[in-house]
Amino acid sequence: MAADAERRSRIQSALKRSAVDALVCCGPTEVLLLTGYWPILGGSVAVVGSSGDEYLIVPHDEEALARATSEANIVAYRPFSLDRLTTPIEALAGPLSAVLQSKKLSGKTLGVEFRQRMQPTTYAASLEYYGSLIDLLESLHLSVHFISCDPVLEPLRAVKTVKELGMVRESARIAAAGFSHVHDWIRPGVRESEIAAECRRAYERFDGHDGIERSYGFFYCMSGANSAEASAPFARTRQRRLEEGDLVLIHANTCADGYWTDITRTYTVGDMSDRQRSMRRAIEEARAEALGAVRPGARGSDVDRAARNVMERHGLGGAFRHATGHGVGFAAANANGIPRIHPRSPDVLEEGMTFNIEPAAYFDGYGGMRHCDMVAVTKDGFEVLTDF
Amino acid sequence: MAADAERRSRIQSALKRSAVDALVCCGPTEVLLLTGYWPILGGSVAVVGSSGDEYLIVPHDEEALARATSEANIVAYRPFSLDRLTTPIEALAGPLSAVLQSKKLSGKTLGVEFRQRMQPTTYAASLEYYGSLIDLLESLHLSVHFISCDPVLEPLRAVKTVKELGMVRESARIAAAGFSHVHDWIRPGVRESEIAAECRRAYERFDGHDGIERSYGFFYCMSGANSAEASAPFARTRQRRLEEGDLVLIHANTCADGYWTDITRTYTVGDMSDRQRSMRRAIEEARAEALGAVRPGARGSDVDRAARNVMERHGLGGAFRHATGHGVGFAAANANGIPRIHPRSPDVLEEGMTFNIEPAAYFDGYGGMRHCDMVAVTKDGFEVLTDF
Repeated sequence: MAADAERRSRIQSALKRSAVDALVCCGPTEVLLLTGYWPILGGSVAVVGSSGDEYLIVPHDEEALARATSEANIVAYRPFSLDRLTTPIEALAGPLSAVLQSKKLSGKTLGVEFRQRMQPTTYAASLEYYGSLIDLLESLHLSVHFISCDPVLEPLRAVKTVKELGMVRESARIAAAGFSHVHDWIRPGVRESEIAAECRRAYERFDGHDGIERSYGFFYCMSGANSAEASAPFARTRQRRLEEGDLVLIHANTCADGYWTDITRTYTVGDMSDRQRSMRRAIEEARAEALGAVRPGARGSDVDRAARNVMERHGLGGAFRHATGHGVGFAAANANGIPRIHPRSPDVLEEGMTFNIEPAAYFDGYGGMRHCDMVAVTKDGFEVLTDF
Repeated sequence: MAADAERRSRIQSALKRSAVDALVCCGPTEVLLLTGYWPILGGSVAVVGSSGDEYLIVPHDEEALARATSEANIVAYRPFSLDRLTTPIEALAGPLSAVLQSKKLSGKTLGVEFRQRMQPTTYAASLEYYGSLIDLLESLHLSVHFISCDPVLEPLRAVKTVKELGMVRESARIAAAGFSHVHDWIRPGVRESEIAAECRRAYERFDGHDGIERSYGFFYCMSGANSAEASAPFARTRQRRLEEGDLVLIHANTCADGYWTDITRTYTVGDMSDRQRSMRRAIEEARAEALGAVRPGARGSDVDRAARNVMERHGLGGAFRHATGHGVGFAAANANGIPRIHPRSPDVLEEGMTFNIEPAAYFDGYGGMRHCDMVAVTKDGFEVLTDF
């Protein structure tokens, strides 16, 4: 894979402007951002210095994959062994120490992961170091200071390079396949779990994953009164059977090689009722107004206001229970992803930011309707990445 | 859900025997173990004291679910809000402080999560506190000492209660559905991704999830030479098309309400060759010998030795590249799960432990065969939870 020169140069500029001399990160998303490699099982560590040197310490089983996607200097280690009982962090100590000792770090400041985060799924389970990585770093007596890497990484994460935007676009293109046959399955008597399974199957069987190493499709279906609960920051599929007149909300978080989408469409069982039609009109109008407000320099709060004004005008202000959107790309579900499209958001949109726009209306006991698109900020406006 | 009195009593006994006065944990698996509730999005915190008091601080959107599955005192908080921009940990500070201030903790020792762990997937993404939870605890000036909770939790996690074993058994029963139609799909020309998708569909559409709130089925297919790479601690599905004579290894990690399975079956495209037949014979014999060694009091290393002896006798010792098994239940893929069925394992089997037995043979460039079952230690022997 061609290196992402734009990303490397942005990282170097950000480090030079910051108090951080080098970054040492083990979160899979952070490793992807810093080195281009999206770890499978966790346990990979990225070390990036302000002089442009880049190391990636990976479990040996992931070495070939790492070499195929990253131009960092790759050091492999064995977190698990048949010869001895060891924990992964013990196995990491030697290689990490060797990488850090080779650099002149005395008196320098290292940016590390102290804080809360939303970490997207990379596998059925993930090996997490976090605190133990910082303990290990402290035990190496490098005479360095540790500070949080977040002030450096957060703005970097928010603005995608041309290559990364291409990956998010590709991820959204594959996600669309999951929604392509949903109309065949929506009818009375079918269970939510069946609808979600069929969407996922269509996603996974889609004949367009070539060039993607790993893709994950989380599809959820919430119908009737259950769909009102989709105002929570998570979705849930249950065994409820669809009934005539139901709202059927289908939510997806999908991922292609570490680049995530956040997409929702809402359907009805049978013809739309007048109530559903008026909800749909308001949501479509709110979406159009929000999109119209997207351009470099606009505030996240302006975009939220544009959508919220429409919902209020239609008498649906109280039913629109959450923010209009949040950053999506390196993360899937993260209400604090930059840019926050939230009533109080000070975030200023920049070209290359990717986020969702998700106007919605929820009525407890009746149901919820949401239309959630992936959007990118372009030079002078917006691009909808989920135009289906 | 009926409370698990056995679990509560074990936690209390373990705390009384330990230097820890109270546990404060946010890992979803740890919250499940301590309170009976398996958090969806992360951000839940369990506080359990040695006097038997149990608190569960949960995002308000998860409050009803938490009440349905846990008898802890439940405190809800709002990690996300439309009225103000806040981070989840900031929102947690007040409720957590109130719970801890209400207890007499001065001079006491709190067990917290400092260390590496394998955290299974709970959703498309997970909110992780870890280090920031410890920072928050320190900022509360409780005059307490912090030590790692692991010495208390690890043995607790390894031995399931009757109720928990029932959940692992149920999880394995549902997982079997994913393998039920695989023979219909294995033929030349079909892609690995299609096989994996069909297994997952069969799992998700299985008409026996009733009573389960959340189930996840990760199914992977690795065929031909790709299947040799299954010796790594993770599986990968690719776009390769099956060919006549291929080995086809299907690996699953599935979960019902937080209780995980780890299962592998290997098939062939067309009739088995002599080579494949001799691999299969060795693996079946190794499985039988390993199972025969399972009983309370046996060492993990004894069970590994039983399987490894057979593989060596068949000339497949070098091809059996990993340990014979590891603890599974609260975690899915965790080579360090107790009991480790590893050549160097000092772990002693106890009734109620659940783990996998996975004899295998891998040949680079040719393929791999593995048979991985879920097993429980009974009063005087073993129970195979995946008898299909």
